[in-house]
Amino acid sequence: MKFEVTILGSGSSTPSLRRNPAAQLINIMENYFLVDCGEGTQIQMRKYKVKLQKIDHIFISHLHGDHYLGLIGMLQSMHLLGRKKNVHLYAHPDLKEMIDLHMKISQTRLTFSIVFHPLSYDEPKVIFENKYVTVSTVVLKHRIPCCGFVFREKEKPYPLDTQSAKALNVPMHAFNALKKGEDVQLEDGRTISFKEVTFNRPKSFSYAYCSDTAYLEKIIESIKGVDVLFHESTFTEELNDRAKETHHSTARQAATIALKAEVGQLVLGHFSVRYKSTENFLAEAGAIFSNTVAAEDGMVIRVY
Amino acid sequence: MKFEVTILGSGSSTPSLRRNPAAQLINIMENYFLVDCGEGTQIQMRKYKVKLQKIDHIFISHLHGDHYLGLIGMLQSMHLLGRKKNVHLYAHPDLKEMIDLHMKISQTRLTFSIVFHPLSYDEPKVIFENKYVTVSTVVLKHRIPCCGFVFREKEKPYPLDTQSAKALNVPMHAFNALKKGEDVQLEDGRTISFKEVTFNRPKSFSYAYCSDTAYLEKIIESIKGVDVLFHESTFTEELNDRAKETHHSTARQAATIALKAEVGQLVLGHFSVRYKSTENFLAEAGAIFSNTVAAEDGMVIRVY
Repeated sequence: MKFEVTILGSGSSTPSLRRNPAAQLINIMENYFLVDCGEGTQIQMRKYKVKLQKIDHIFISHLHGDHYLGLIGMLQSMHLLGRKKNVHLYAHPDLKEMIDLHMKISQTRLTFSIVFHPLSYDEPKVIFENKYVTVSTVVLKHRIPCCGFVFREKEKPYPLDTQSAKALNVPMHAFNALKKGEDVQLEDGRTISFKEVTFNRPKSFSYAYCSDTAYLEKIIESIKGVDVLFHESTFTEELNDRAKETHHSTARQAATIALKAEVGQLVLGHFSVRYKSTENFLAEAGAIFSNTVAAEDGMVIRVY
Repeated sequence: MKFEVTILGSGSSTPSLRRNPAAQLINIMENYFLVDCGEGTQIQMRKYKVKLQKIDHIFISHLHGDHYLGLIGMLQSMHLLGRKKNVHLYAHPDLKEMIDLHMKISQTRLTFSIVFHPLSYDEPKVIFENKYVTVSTVVLKHRIPCCGFVFREKEKPYPLDTQSAKALNVPMHAFNALKKGEDVQLEDGRTISFKEVTFNRPKSFSYAYCSDTAYLEKIIESIKGVDVLFHESTFTEELNDRAKETHHSTARQAATIALKAEVGQLVLGHFSVRYKSTENFLAEAGAIFSNTVAAEDGMVIRVY
């Protein structure tokens, strides 16, 4: 059981040696989701031992260069390494045009297909689900259309208490229904309540990625109660005006959202290159929401 | 007096932690020329302390991703850092379309202008010159249109022998003509031969960049006698077939070109990611052309 986030890039628009532009890898029970893909993401993956070809789903928040300019090179490497599996890409429709143009001018015909899922920016939507996870959008407020993403584990089955099941002589074919929380009537006439033969349902965890955005209370309903929230904080409060002007947030604003949304932990990131340390970010946010950390490239956040 | 080349990326299509994709910075007397701009070039510049804003001329050999995908991010950083000076870009016309599309979809209006110089691929041409340098193309043979570039210092002035000039009472206004190698008739009727008052003309140096290309003897006339030749060698001879198929060269082929073109030094590069060492490249090329080195990221090659 695993739900962790690897920060591949914690910086913002101008990259530095310490911070690559935005990219995160989310691993939920060996389902790998890439969120944003700034320039150099594939190099970061090599550095932090992320296996490129395991990624099947890529989510791009918006089309500023620091969030997508590593994508074409990464797709190109997947191709050169002989990938056959589809890649699902969730992004603004304009990105397809950009990729198609590159493939045309470089005369490349990929060894795999890109299944393009255009995002819309009017209201939050579920854009992906499988047996374990749903991914939904958060509509952010930025200079161009921009979405965050919430990764939620689905309800988990009740773990079977095999000892009690054995003691009650429950046949195996009833296990699935019991684990789903259904009571089962047996052939011998007995009704077995799932509560008799299962343990408590394990918690389902969740992670929200919100970058880039101005302070926006409307997002609270989309991210309410997530276990971990990544919220951009490009600036600290003394550059509040600059944050407003560029549609970014300050550390204080990120913490205010975390507090109001009652999240478990706040991860700050997307720091402007002008800051040499995250000390002031942590002080500013920590005064409002104490369980706050600052993202660093290569950091692994355990959602549980 | 300086003529040096900084290797920013010595790898080929799939980047590794050791080798970034293609990019080189050429510094000729503080004139900075960037040749190719693979993904991550701007990060390499930070690593090797290259000043981004000093670059006024960018030459892109061809539109495979490993030679140009770092360009848009680099232009974007120039913009965010407030550049005003023009950037001159020499590339296939399709690159302009790609840049324009990015600027449109990211809603960016650059703070500076890009002066686009479309390359042609029919015959070698002089594409740039200033007081000190000319840059001309080399028509290479690759899967898509591709050019190499030759950087040649112009003829240098004869250094004035100030002692002799003083002894002969040569007036200052005659110096320029003498340094150009012209004899000068003075007001007092004397003719001063430039040979009397100057030292030998210093050598003008030259550097050629040839990547990507199949073995092509036709390029010899374009690069004849250059002091340093960078020639791609994506493979060693045992993958000769693969080289042919992908329009690349082997180390042996690069050395054969160096020998036939009578260059001073050969620099090998654009190594396929499959090779862990350059030992075999150097052995193979060295058997044909002894003054051969293997490029590494961060290496500085002194042309003189």
